[in-house]
Amino acid sequence: MWPRTPLTDKLGITYPILLAPMAGGPSTPALVASVSNAGGLGSFGAGYAKPDQIRAAVREIQRLTDRPFSVNLFIPAGQQASPPPEDLSRAEAMIRPYYEELGLAAPPLAELPSLPPFAEQLAAVIEERVPVFSFTSGLLPAEHARELKARGVILAGNATTVREALLVAECGADIVIGQGSEAGGHRGTFATAPERGLIGTMALIPQLADRVGVPVVAAGGIMDGRGIVAALALGAAGVQMGTAFLRCAESGAHPRYKEAVAAGADEDATALTRAFSGRLARSRRNRFVEEIAARGGPPVGYPEQHALTVGLRQAAAARDRPELMSLWSGQGAPRNATGGAAELIAELAAEVERVIERLR
Amino acid sequence: MWPRTPLTDKLGITYPILLAPMAGGPSTPALVASVSNAGGLGSFGAGYAKPDQIRAAVREIQRLTDRPFSVNLFIPAGQQASPPPEDLSRAEAMIRPYYEELGLAAPPLAELPSLPPFAEQLAAVIEERVPVFSFTSGLLPAEHARELKARGVILAGNATTVREALLVAECGADIVIGQGSEAGGHRGTFATAPERGLIGTMALIPQLADRVGVPVVAAGGIMDGRGIVAALALGAAGVQMGTAFLRCAESGAHPRYKEAVAAGADEDATALTRAFSGRLARSRRNRFVEEIAARGGPPVGYPEQHALTVGLRQAAAARDRPELMSLWSGQGAPRNATGGAAELIAELAAEVERVIERLR
Repeated sequence: MWPRTPLTDKLGITYPILLAPMAGGPSTPALVASVSNAGGLGSFGAGYAKPDQIRAAVREIQRLTDRPFSVNLFIPAGQQASPPPEDLSRAEAMIRPYYEELGLAAPPLAELPSLPPFAEQLAAVIEERVPVFSFTSGLLPAEHARELKARGVILAGNATTVREALLVAECGADIVIGQGSEAGGHRGTFATAPERGLIGTMALIPQLADRVGVPVVAAGGIMDGRGIVAALALGAAGVQMGTAFLRCAESGAHPRYKEAVAAGADEDATALTRAFSGRLARSRRNRFVEEIAARGGPPVGYPEQHALTVGLRQAAAARDRPELMSLWSGQGAPRNATGGAAELIAELAAEVERVIERLR
Repeated sequence: MWPRTPLTDKLGITYPILLAPMAGGPSTPALVASVSNAGGLGSFGAGYAKPDQIRAAVREIQRLTDRPFSVNLFIPAGQQASPPPEDLSRAEAMIRPYYEELGLAAPPLAELPSLPPFAEQLAAVIEERVPVFSFTSGLLPAEHARELKARGVILAGNATTVREALLVAECGADIVIGQGSEAGGHRGTFATAPERGLIGTMALIPQLADRVGVPVVAAGGIMDGRGIVAALALGAAGVQMGTAFLRCAESGAHPRYKEAVAAGADEDATALTRAFSGRLARSRRNRFVEEIAARGGPPVGYPEQHALTVGLRQAAAARDRPELMSLWSGQGAPRNATGGAAELIAELAAEVERVIERLR
């Protein structure tokens, strides 16, 4: 028997397994719906999506499942000064050779792509009646939290430290997702220096469970039934898993990306890098990660570095050049799960029961 | 009922709990013996001890317990070139003001203290019939492994990556201790760049359990019964805990050190630093850690930086100045355990049973 947790009760799901919202590729409506249909909570990573794209994705998810699911957005930083023009020029000069290697021109600095406005993204989430809304990299402004809660939306917020978790709960989150240092993709750290938000899951989750008054979900390094039981033992009410689902049939991850994640690692195959977006994130090590690190990292932060490299990464994907793609991945070794997400969830469920049996 | 594991069987202990060998203060014969008498495996950190000190400590442990215990040594690096004299001078200049602040002269560069020779330390371990020998920061040379095994000594080696774990098992270790990035004190990474050995416990342990043919012990971030059950769920046969025992009555940790470990942390209170020894280690953040980091870290590595600062740290301890002491600590929040180690082990044992019960 699977343990029921405050999370399964709150969300009305069978298994306390949340799909990590993997924006920018892996996250597809089919993957989200499969996880939800199998008894977990699918999550759509909409951080880079325009409002129309969010509407279309949510409608597709709703067509594929009548179970709860989640949509995730990035909280934008407050008013930030633009970087000095000379830093932007240096950043462009660092990236330009990679575009040229692919036979392309780097994007003109005056025409860098911008991210969709958060308020418009959130309006789409609200209008489409998304049942669970999750947010990362900041706090949900009070007026939005009130509106979402008035409409019955369940809120989940990402935290990398105790202080962030307390702030996230205080701003109205019904669930806190504790992101350990093992996690793939962007660090959600927002209230402290990024290096102070690199706490391993084993150390972070018990502290959150002791200090935060809402259910805590563990994220970071959880790849199989062993990790799920470990997280529950630590005091989590559930887990969030991304890398484990990357290779599923419904995942939109590029084939080269799926291959990279499948490759084993005798040492840590991942690195924390700002090379792709200007914001600290965990990717498989590849040529781009190593070369930008060797040059001291990008001279600009987020979102400028993201805007400078997004075209490069898309072109690299189109040309099957994984050495220039962002290959977000956690530190764990995922199962060899290339079938449907429902199959993986069934395997995880069976594994959890075996692990608990072994502990008795 | 506590789960028996391949580790309890192999070591003849009741609980699969190893005391971390905390060299240079916390490790006392009384602490080691208390942990062993309570059913765990006490471990004496002898890395900085002279052969005579090792002999005296082991005899004291044997006087206090007839249960198995362990002694730990650091494997010295192979022949290394001395650092260039100008680097040593710069390192001395960086440290000198701290000595002067305490009214002391920095040690003359020609008279830096040296570490006791490994072969002599090991000879003391062998002669005193230590039942379990553990090693960190390298591989046990084959001739030593043969001799120890011929005498029936059980060998445990520290690893921070899969590759290191395979090497450690291949060199003869009966037990591999997997040190996750959360762990306090020195990183044991020896076969790769230190930053590639920073894998969180949650991600590291299942990979070791899958790939290594001997029992795996989980270390890093484990502070209570929740962490112990989590480690066992991940596939570990036991745990190694250090920070959790630091405040025990028998611990030789300085009172200011004990206070520092007890202080909570809303953000990560620890940092990875080379400031004290030249080798990467996790300490509570304090003034020395922050100031040396702000100056780009020490210009020399281990053991030169250790030799430069050891007198400073001893003087700081004598003067109750924790801001200049090494405050090795893991990322987790330890229980409030200030009684005897036996009391802590009994509490952990009860907690483990409750956590397993909760999972059913």
